[in-house]
Amino acid sequence: MLLVRTLKEIGDLDNRAMAAAQRRLDSLIKPPGSLGILEEIVVQLAGITGEPYPAVGKKVVIIMAGDHGVVEEGVSIAPQEVTAEMLPAFMAGVAGIGVLAKHAGARIVVVDVGVASPIDFPGLLQKKVRAGTANIARGPAMTKEEAVTALEVGIQVAQEEIERGAGLLATGDMGIGNTTPSSAILAAIGGYTAQEVVGRGTLVNDRVLQIKVRAIEKALEINKPDCRDGLDVLAKVGGLEIAGLAGVILGAAARRVPVLIDGFITTAAALAACQMQPKARQYIIASHLSGEQGHRLMLDELKLTPVVNLNMRLGEGTGAALTMHIIEAATRVIREMASFDEAGVSDLDEDKIWS
Amino acid sequence: MLLVRTLKEIGDLDNRAMAAAQRRLDSLIKPPGSLGILEEIVVQLAGITGEPYPAVGKKVVIIMAGDHGVVEEGVSIAPQEVTAEMLPAFMAGVAGIGVLAKHAGARIVVVDVGVASPIDFPGLLQKKVRAGTANIARGPAMTKEEAVTALEVGIQVAQEEIERGAGLLATGDMGIGNTTPSSAILAAIGGYTAQEVVGRGTLVNDRVLQIKVRAIEKALEINKPDCRDGLDVLAKVGGLEIAGLAGVILGAAARRVPVLIDGFITTAAALAACQMQPKARQYIIASHLSGEQGHRLMLDELKLTPVVNLNMRLGEGTGAALTMHIIEAATRVIREMASFDEAGVSDLDEDKIWS
Repeated sequence: MLLVRTLKEIGDLDNRAMAAAQRRLDSLIKPPGSLGILEEIVVQLAGITGEPYPAVGKKVVIIMAGDHGVVEEGVSIAPQEVTAEMLPAFMAGVAGIGVLAKHAGARIVVVDVGVASPIDFPGLLQKKVRAGTANIARGPAMTKEEAVTALEVGIQVAQEEIERGAGLLATGDMGIGNTTPSSAILAAIGGYTAQEVVGRGTLVNDRVLQIKVRAIEKALEINKPDCRDGLDVLAKVGGLEIAGLAGVILGAAARRVPVLIDGFITTAAALAACQMQPKARQYIIASHLSGEQGHRLMLDELKLTPVVNLNMRLGEGTGAALTMHIIEAATRVIREMASFDEAGVSDLDEDKIWS
Repeated sequence: MLLVRTLKEIGDLDNRAMAAAQRRLDSLIKPPGSLGILEEIVVQLAGITGEPYPAVGKKVVIIMAGDHGVVEEGVSIAPQEVTAEMLPAFMAGVAGIGVLAKHAGARIVVVDVGVASPIDFPGLLQKKVRAGTANIARGPAMTKEEAVTALEVGIQVAQEEIERGAGLLATGDMGIGNTTPSSAILAAIGGYTAQEVVGRGTLVNDRVLQIKVRAIEKALEINKPDCRDGLDVLAKVGGLEIAGLAGVILGAAARRVPVLIDGFITTAAALAACQMQPKARQYIIASHLSGEQGHRLMLDELKLTPVVNLNMRLGEGTGAALTMHIIEAATRVIREMASFDEAGVSDLDEDKIWS
């Protein structure tokens, strides 16, 4: 089975490549460590790819779309139709991710893994597992088989893009109501209360916030997800696009390709993926800190530090797309900067160095 | 006189353009405010340029280089020759700023405004005011006339680039020892002690750190810079490249072009520039928070929030260059994203919105 095989394929980082990258970085014409997070990114990419001087290659943003039965509780500000309505705007380059992916020089791939209505437009990848989840406040989101199928859609899409030359993947989401299951995943895996993990999502007011808290509480009470079992959590309180995104992360990790997570939804997917295979964490780069309240708790659970904090909370992969430029910059530093010797620059005085 | 005329030319932001930009941002297919800092940048750029839908145009990184007499106190880890040795590597694209400016699609302009030794290489702008400053721990860095000349070099270089089409300027520095005068500028203008403003610069050890503290203390005691007079501060405890950079900031502001400051040195220049003309502050974008300790104090003085924090402390304009991509992204958001009406996407439910 593809999922089981993929989980087994995920290995550790290449320590030798990481050490070689670190040595080269320390020889370049700059004070040691002075490029901060860029240097950390290079070393991680070296470990992921096994290349001491890694390159990014083609960049792809994979956006998974799905609907959520829990919207019938009234947890969202936007009507469910918006999930389907936004997707053509992604492809046309007039929605947030469309614009920012173009700016990043990245291709976007839009996947229907669970939109409620039938949809079709040029470029859409039709991989619908079911037409939206069931209402998690009343029962499981989907069956375990459906969750596995959605995960495998993600693995397949990621690995097809990698076969076509992608060297850096970013994850994006579209699904009205999906901050509610994402909060439930965080509560289940991190052991938090609904109150602690809930946020305003798309700017809901206090009344709707209370409805969200109740919906998450009910989802946890009724479904009793097993916190140690990422698949169980995804099936019971997750979403189809969230499972698909967890698959993208696992598929990238198995092929030793770095994968950027975006905000609250894609990080919920990462939480579930890493519960299934903790080694996957090493292949993830946290792009930004979302304005959505619980995102920091998720990143803390994963022990990941976001590259930037731009107070964004749009989702769609926008934060991840925007960060691709910084990841690429890191690879150009190690590939293009000269060493003190190569540039004929006088070396620093070792006797004065702080370390 | 160019400096006086420039200070008078700097006006306020265009409120009408800012309001029009805000209206358009609020109509786009995303929750209001969900692009965070990107939206704030667009509104500022609208105010600067007077264009409700601003574009960035050509990008230029202006790097001012100068040497510092205070190195004879032993404040730096690198020999003074490194100032001159690094500059060709900037132009050749093998130093940090060379690589990151290329990656940003920006041209770099390297200006010798005060390097100690005679230098010449293809592309260098030769504008030497004097061959390095005097030792600020023993007397003024330069005369007031020299400071004015260095400021005017900066104004001229900035405005020549703007005449050639630059729509976004970034500032960068090169000058061995220049964290010491920058710390002195912060202490003088912000009213801090030497201990509060000093940092490890290029990773100096504890012994050198104490030498830096003493040098800054002596510079303030001997020179008694007038905290309300930016020109006096620059002449007494500043540097030639720092005055040049203050000129770049003032020159950009006078022409209503946004200017990115980088780390500790360029922000010291901004502090002095804004002391001379407080309105200049509105034209500055703080690109990143430097790892150098006193940088946050400087940004607090200026009431500026850095776009990113990547724990970088290289200088040269590297943080500013890296941030250009984000500034451009902001302009593409307002110019390329569609509104709810234009995209045919169902609007959000006003009754549920939190505001």
